[in-house]
Amino acid sequence: MPSNEPGARDDAYDFSHRIRVRFSETDAMGIVHHSRYLPYFEETRVEYLRELDHPYDEMRAQGIDMAVIEAGVRYKVPLRFDDLVDVHVRMGEVARASFRMDYLLRVGDQVVATGFTRHACISPDGRPTRMPAWLRELCLRPADGS
Amino acid sequence: MPSNEPGARDDAYDFSHRIRVRFSETDAMGIVHHSRYLPYFEETRVEYLRELDHPYDEMRAQGIDMAVIEAGVRYKVPLRFDDLVDVHVRMGEVARASFRMDYLLRVGDQVVATGFTRHACISPDGRPTRMPAWLRELCLRPADGS
Amino acid sequence: MPSNEPGARDDAYDFSHRIRVRFSETDAMGIVHHSRYLPYFEETRVEYLRELDHPYDEMRAQGIDMAVIEAGVRYKVPLRFDDLVDVHVRMGEVARASFRMDYLLRVGDQVVATGFTRHACISPDGRPTRMPAWLRELCLRPADGS
Amino acid sequence: MPSNEPGARDDAYDFSHRIRVRFSETDAMGIVHHSRYLPYFEETRVEYLRELDHPYDEMRAQGIDMAVIEAGVRYKVPLRFDDLVDVHVRMGEVARASFRMDYLLRVGDQVVATGFTRHACISPDGRPTRMPAWLRELCLRPADGS
Repeated sequence: MPSNEPGARDDAYDFSHRIRVRFSETDAMGIVHHSRYLPYFEETRVEYLRELDHPYDEMRAQGIDMAVIEAGVRYKVPLRFDDLVDVHVRMGEVARASFRMDYLLRVGDQVVATGFTRHACISPDGRPTRMPAWLRELCLRPADGS
Repeated sequence: MPSNEPGARDDAYDFSHRIRVRFSETDAMGIVHHSRYLPYFEETRVEYLRELDHPYDEMRAQGIDMAVIEAGVRYKVPLRFDDLVDVHVRMGEVARASFRMDYLLRVGDQVVATGFTRHACISPDGRPTRMPAWLRELCLRPADGS
Repeated sequence: MPSNEPGARDDAYDFSHRIRVRFSETDAMGIVHHSRYLPYFEETRVEYLRELDHPYDEMRAQGIDMAVIEAGVRYKVPLRFDDLVDVHVRMGEVARASFRMDYLLRVGDQVVATGFTRHACISPDGRPTRMPAWLRELCLRPADGS
Repeated sequence: MPSNEPGARDDAYDFSHRIRVRFSETDAMGIVHHSRYLPYFEETRVEYLRELDHPYDEMRAQGIDMAVIEAGVRYKVPLRFDDLVDVHVRMGEVARASFRMDYLLRVGDQVVATGFTRHACISPDGRPTRMPAWLRELCLRPADGS
């Protein structure tokens, strides 16, 4: 499967987080504004890190920020006010200084969007820094957990 | 006129700044979401400080932040995508440790909203700090500039 | 107690809803941007209406929108990324064509903000319309439920 | 040059629009939040359509909406509060039912980000509709205008 096209099977994802669409996130087309998906990805990323016992807060306190260096979204079915969205996330490919995370959004059984973010670890002054060992290991782990 | 009810005459305001409504600021009612007026106030405040030769950036570099401690808005006529909004601003009453700014929004000749923000000067660690002399003087200046 | 100063005791509130602060809601002062409290109020309002068996979605489908005609916030203690905020809400005073809702925000035991919104019921074409009977009754109910 | 990597030379772009970064668009890392670039793209798109004498407002009144079906951003240099950003835009490749727009963001001489959006024309009920003739022609026009 090409690396920019995360699979639609959610058993290939490590974690999922449910988000209720806010009215303030809709636009005059009556649907969620396309820029609002990136904060959904971010909220899910934060919950995933908490689940992994490496809360983002703690990473930041230790002087590591996960800067977003690239992001992409494919919008398949519009989201509407009050929808309950399940955001699935998994670690994607890791390079020397960056790693990717992949997202799949479902409302009930329907896949409504996919996306990814690519991150670099940086220090508080904005300089690239080493990825923590646990993060590198997580990225290199086979997706099926075997 | 009571202090919480800024006048609708815009000659009582010191400065105005024009903002074009973005599509991303609308909501599913087809109008600008009510939370989006506060960034309009803020953008206008920033331009007003620049006009006064005390850019906000410079204030922050000197260790003074203008924390928002209270805000209010009265929504009279909805704003829509692509509207050109003139945001008028003036300094309001000053207390020992805080000051108010008043706003009036017009689209063409029509008053569409009024509002205010109340600010305290704080240091980078979040502690209250003295208001700069120029700011205190500005607040105490008669509104008509005479 | 004056009507614009909601009490800090949360037993005077009807309902509360917990919100986790998103990173995307913070600003360069390291705290939640002041405009972001209004979507917190709105999310809580929506959950409160659902709890009352009058979901907002359904109201809108029946041709009634609750336009925001006034809003105010008092910011007491800054909110930070990842804070868990309990937003308490209660119905405030009702006038012929509008009603108020009051909010109290706590993080743990600490009151961090209070606020209110005033609403008018409008039809899909934006004209004022009658408040539904259940809503009028709710507003007129004594706050202590007795 | 691969189609997902818009060139950094801004003479290859048709139009540019200047945006001042708002304080409300920054986050606790002290930089513009990555989700805020998409509204910058959108604002520029709207100004570009106005320049082409096909204002978006008018398109919507004629029953055509330009739904965003895909978007991507590469973040190269962080944007900060008060930065003046020049957003360059050009039409990208056109398919049967969709077209792409490419963006390049500069602050002064420095390229700070690139991105794209892919759009489908839809009717008010959300169904795919024909692309207007002027839009198809615009997409097929050689980039150098010859």
